[in-house]
Amino acid sequence: MRLLRHGSPGAEKPGLMTPDGSIRDLSARLPELTPGALDPACLKRLAGLDPDSLPPVMGAPRLGVPLVGIGNILCIGLNYRDHAAETGLPPPAEPILFSKHTSALSGPCDAIRLAPGSTRTDWEVELAVIIGRPARRVSEAQALDHVAAYAVLNDVSERSFQIDRGGQWIKGKSCDTYCPLGPWLTTADEVPDPQSLGLWLSVDGEMRQNGQTGDMIFGVAELIAYVSRFMTLKPGDVLATGTPAGVGMGRGEYLRPGQTVRLGIDGPDGLTLGQMTLPVEATPED
Amino acid sequence: MRLLRHGSPGAEKPGLMTPDGSIRDLSARLPELTPGALDPACLKRLAGLDPDSLPPVMGAPRLGVPLVGIGNILCIGLNYRDHAAETGLPPPAEPILFSKHTSALSGPCDAIRLAPGSTRTDWEVELAVIIGRPARRVSEAQALDHVAAYAVLNDVSERSFQIDRGGQWIKGKSCDTYCPLGPWLTTADEVPDPQSLGLWLSVDGEMRQNGQTGDMIFGVAELIAYVSRFMTLKPGDVLATGTPAGVGMGRGEYLRPGQTVRLGIDGPDGLTLGQMTLPVEATPED
Repeated sequence: MRLLRHGSPGAEKPGLMTPDGSIRDLSARLPELTPGALDPACLKRLAGLDPDSLPPVMGAPRLGVPLVGIGNILCIGLNYRDHAAETGLPPPAEPILFSKHTSALSGPCDAIRLAPGSTRTDWEVELAVIIGRPARRVSEAQALDHVAAYAVLNDVSERSFQIDRGGQWIKGKSCDTYCPLGPWLTTADEVPDPQSLGLWLSVDGEMRQNGQTGDMIFGVAELIAYVSRFMTLKPGDVLATGTPAGVGMGRGEYLRPGQTVRLGIDGPDGLTLGQMTLPVEATPED
Repeated sequence: MRLLRHGSPGAEKPGLMTPDGSIRDLSARLPELTPGALDPACLKRLAGLDPDSLPPVMGAPRLGVPLVGIGNILCIGLNYRDHAAETGLPPPAEPILFSKHTSALSGPCDAIRLAPGSTRTDWEVELAVIIGRPARRVSEAQALDHVAAYAVLNDVSERSFQIDRGGQWIKGKSCDTYCPLGPWLTTADEVPDPQSLGLWLSVDGEMRQNGQTGDMIFGVAELIAYVSRFMTLKPGDVLATGTPAGVGMGRGEYLRPGQTVRLGIDGPDGLTLGQMTLPVEATPED
């Protein structure tokens, strides 16, 4: 099942995308797509709906952030060996964890607005894991039972704020629009193996990242088990699982106004988590 | 105005504390104490209520986390010169920023449950600033207009998870119960100068921290202005403004089950942000 939010900014309604790619409105059946909607019982109820009973959404509506009420955005650093190598850092012995402020969230076709004062804003395509059930000290074997859905995430990062401004990374990870998420949530039942996905990102049509989730140093189940030893993951938390090689920092190339970033994640047998197309803009003067 | 939540865990109701220390129930006037309730218009409406028109809450009820829906907990590291010195680190040239996961929140009389595997769990009394209006690139002169309230916060920290487990601090800051907040919210109109407060913490009755917010390296207004350059602070965000000297790490002394931590913040002219009394417990086996 592919769950999404359609409509203009601040006025999105919940919807679902049928296998043929058309959008049906869910708002008569679900007031909003919140962490509560990710509960297994609620997802089962939604999956039982007949799409033909739901009003079609005509045209090509804007899609928004596919979940409201996201509580915490946790990110894993240097989780692909080739990306660790391009940053000049050794592969970590255990997962590196940091966070993004939730005000960084933006939709799958919204612009990346370069933060005032930024000089080195970079891209990072990542597989996002959306938690559906509380996870506290869960085993690796049970970890995936706590996943409600997957999505595409761009961990946009201003390297000067991240690295040169006082140690912890959050400052460079949290600017407005620096966390595009979407285009929809693909429920976990449609992703039998999160380690068999391909993830890619292009800038102005030139491929910059092209990796495989199978190359993660720490896989999704291991990450959830690991993080849940330190904190209780809550429904609606998002775990960004790291990025493969090909970020701008590796080649000294950063985003400029007027560029377009495209990124997506695809799996075997026609599975797709979707694509996002993100124009890059300067931030308008206040 | 002092706003609080009273009742058993998970069933708290909003309330307010009158100047004489009695509690009145607000639930007929406000369904819940959420970020929306921190809006200036809502606070003004609440301040206009006659406490005598509100039902008294009898006895000595448990108090819970004084706000639900806290979005992000942002913390400032090494913001008092004497604390930086005791950690052996130089005072920072600009604010150090990190975060706690929101599942760490607990109430002002709830136990600190030492995390499984923890060996060096430490205390940090801090002035918590609760944001009431969005703050994006605000000036230092206007920053305090974005503060809805203040409270006492204990930035409980497992030093081994924080320092020895991979670089970023969030792992040692986010265990369940490692963010006691309370006992109530004191609205900003009652705190004319957040830099004139005394903050203290004792363990088993022995004073361990005894500082002055006037000794912050970066004051509250400067912190809000600074952080808001990197991310938009949202209503319900909590900013923990750093801790003075006297943490356990400075003397190699850490929390043990059976101990009691008390902490509070007081101002001039009888102002008090309240006290919290936190028993320390081992975590029950799962």
